[in-house]
Amino acid sequence: MTASSHDTVRALEWADEALYLLDQRRLPEAEAYRCCRDAPAVAAAIAEMVVRGAPAIGIAAAYGAALAARTAWREHGAGWAAAMADDLEALRRSRPTAVNLAWALARMEARAAELPAGEDPTPALLAEAHAVHAEDVAANRRMGRSGAGLIQPGSGVLTHCNTGSLATGGLGTALGVIRTAWADGRLERVFADETRPWLQGARLTAWELAADGIPVALLADGAAPALMRSGAVDWVVVGADRIAANGDVANKIGTYGLALAAREHEVRFMVVAPAATIDPQTPDGEAIPIETRGAEEVLSAGGHRIAPAGEGVGAWNPVFDVTPAGLVDVLVTERGVVHQPDAEGIARLVAEGG
Amino acid sequence: MTASSHDTVRALEWADEALYLLDQRRLPEAEAYRCCRDAPAVAAAIAEMVVRGAPAIGIAAAYGAALAARTAWREHGAGWAAAMADDLEALRRSRPTAVNLAWALARMEARAAELPAGEDPTPALLAEAHAVHAEDVAANRRMGRSGAGLIQPGSGVLTHCNTGSLATGGLGTALGVIRTAWADGRLERVFADETRPWLQGARLTAWELAADGIPVALLADGAAPALMRSGAVDWVVVGADRIAANGDVANKIGTYGLALAAREHEVRFMVVAPAATIDPQTPDGEAIPIETRGAEEVLSAGGHRIAPAGEGVGAWNPVFDVTPAGLVDVLVTERGVVHQPDAEGIARLVAEGG
Repeated sequence: MTASSHDTVRALEWADEALYLLDQRRLPEAEAYRCCRDAPAVAAAIAEMVVRGAPAIGIAAAYGAALAARTAWREHGAGWAAAMADDLEALRRSRPTAVNLAWALARMEARAAELPAGEDPTPALLAEAHAVHAEDVAANRRMGRSGAGLIQPGSGVLTHCNTGSLATGGLGTALGVIRTAWADGRLERVFADETRPWLQGARLTAWELAADGIPVALLADGAAPALMRSGAVDWVVVGADRIAANGDVANKIGTYGLALAAREHEVRFMVVAPAATIDPQTPDGEAIPIETRGAEEVLSAGGHRIAPAGEGVGAWNPVFDVTPAGLVDVLVTERGVVHQPDAEGIARLVAEGG
Repeated sequence: MTASSHDTVRALEWADEALYLLDQRRLPEAEAYRCCRDAPAVAAAIAEMVVRGAPAIGIAAAYGAALAARTAWREHGAGWAAAMADDLEALRRSRPTAVNLAWALARMEARAAELPAGEDPTPALLAEAHAVHAEDVAANRRMGRSGAGLIQPGSGVLTHCNTGSLATGGLGTALGVIRTAWADGRLERVFADETRPWLQGARLTAWELAADGIPVALLADGAAPALMRSGAVDWVVVGADRIAANGDVANKIGTYGLALAAREHEVRFMVVAPAATIDPQTPDGEAIPIETRGAEEVLSAGGHRIAPAGEGVGAWNPVFDVTPAGLVDVLVTERGVVHQPDAEGIARLVAEGG
């Protein structure tokens, strides 16, 4: 059995001159696709979380930039480069925390700057978007292999949120490591936090793992410290939405508490993310902008209101939290692995791969 | 404004010769009562979580014992004491972790042992159940006052699960402290974890606080460590389902992670529980039996399935976790307050009040 047999789901597909996004808000109840034929549609899909997960957002934005160029060329001809600026800005503002979004747009802009004004930029930019996508698939495989190699046979792993095929172009980041380690026969137990308020763990990770035939036990997010105390977990394996220059990690809300409990119980803590998630311009976790979403996400569950109505009942709903670098045992990227990540280790990784 | 003005909800009422229980599974959508006219009905209501919260379970069990005696007297006359044994056993087995249940039943049995065989035991045992109930109401007030006195004006508090009027006979334990501190004008911010999987925080605590006009911000359980890191919380205030002789505290799943994060951020950690929650027969947290409930509670949210169906998708659903005594700053009981609780402090409290 190879890792590739545990890889059957696609969050994004380019087909018929359009970007098709699997609507992740409706999983696991329905597998419905949204077709995006222009950049505003892609920006809206990112903002509404039709597509989510830092790498997948980056890939969607890259295709969005190609669509922006197509629209600009059709409507403005040789003035396309200036004409696509508003669309690029809308894509950039669609979600604030994942740096992969800004990274992908910067790459698309750099490619656009190389193109002649008098030719249709769409083929070249679409090729660049396909390259972003294909490189993510390849990066997933490399990270899966590197991360799985760190896990001893017979281990139990706990993951948080969804970092699989739904969050990336391919196998996944943290879930790619888990898929690979499972295919290698290294895992005895796979646990997934349900990940409120959006329930990415219960809705998406469980769905991906079930599709791949990997058994999983879900748990309430608050149960994770007790699970670690029970001895069932050897590794916490998570993704990242932005990694600061000093190694601090912004990831789905709840990650920080996992890291604290992992340290307490000598459970190892692995962050798996493509190098594009590292933002050398962000010095530390304090400088990472953390998106806050509407109260309704907490006041409801699974699409149904749970909290009482009333003016006095509000919610605090940050989407991400920051785990200090000191709580991370290892950072796995497609460029290499950094043990006990700190400013020096991160700088070395960025320099080597740059 | 006095504390009593923030106290409008009742989980249990004795009326028309029966025990009426507010069905907490249906809150906040519906305020429906279940009428229990015999002990098996009470045992079923406890097992099904129509009534929950350690002190409220104890009170319900006390009334259940009085109902058992009534049935036994009607059906067996002078043989009532032996005839009620099965009903008492069913009550004892209805939930495993809350020691208040065993405590209340032991008290009722001790009272029953004093009664003559040839007389209807119902009035005396009903009076005893009323006393258990009334003492809990009084204990709530004393704990509310003691705990609130520890909180500095201008503080923020975070609570977990529901420890209010729905969990007790009166004002509540941890929520009684919060109600009292609010009435005293000491609180600037009240936060409540939603408390998956049963959502006691979102459904019950928010409902009680809204009814009392106390504004609350709900948060996903995993967000609590980030909230503490933000500096918004000065005290975590929680209840307990069983306290071991060494001070270890079993409480709703998620409590242990709060305690770890509180220590990390120098947030103080207060446990509020009637002395009946202390079990001198349980040496430490390892010896506390932890109830595990069905996977369906985690695979659903707010009564709706969220996880995909499939043989490979399971759940780990312990109802409680154990917080080591060393993470507790103060234990507030109606008999007194124990700072940095340990075996010696617990023994002194038990001896003084015994």
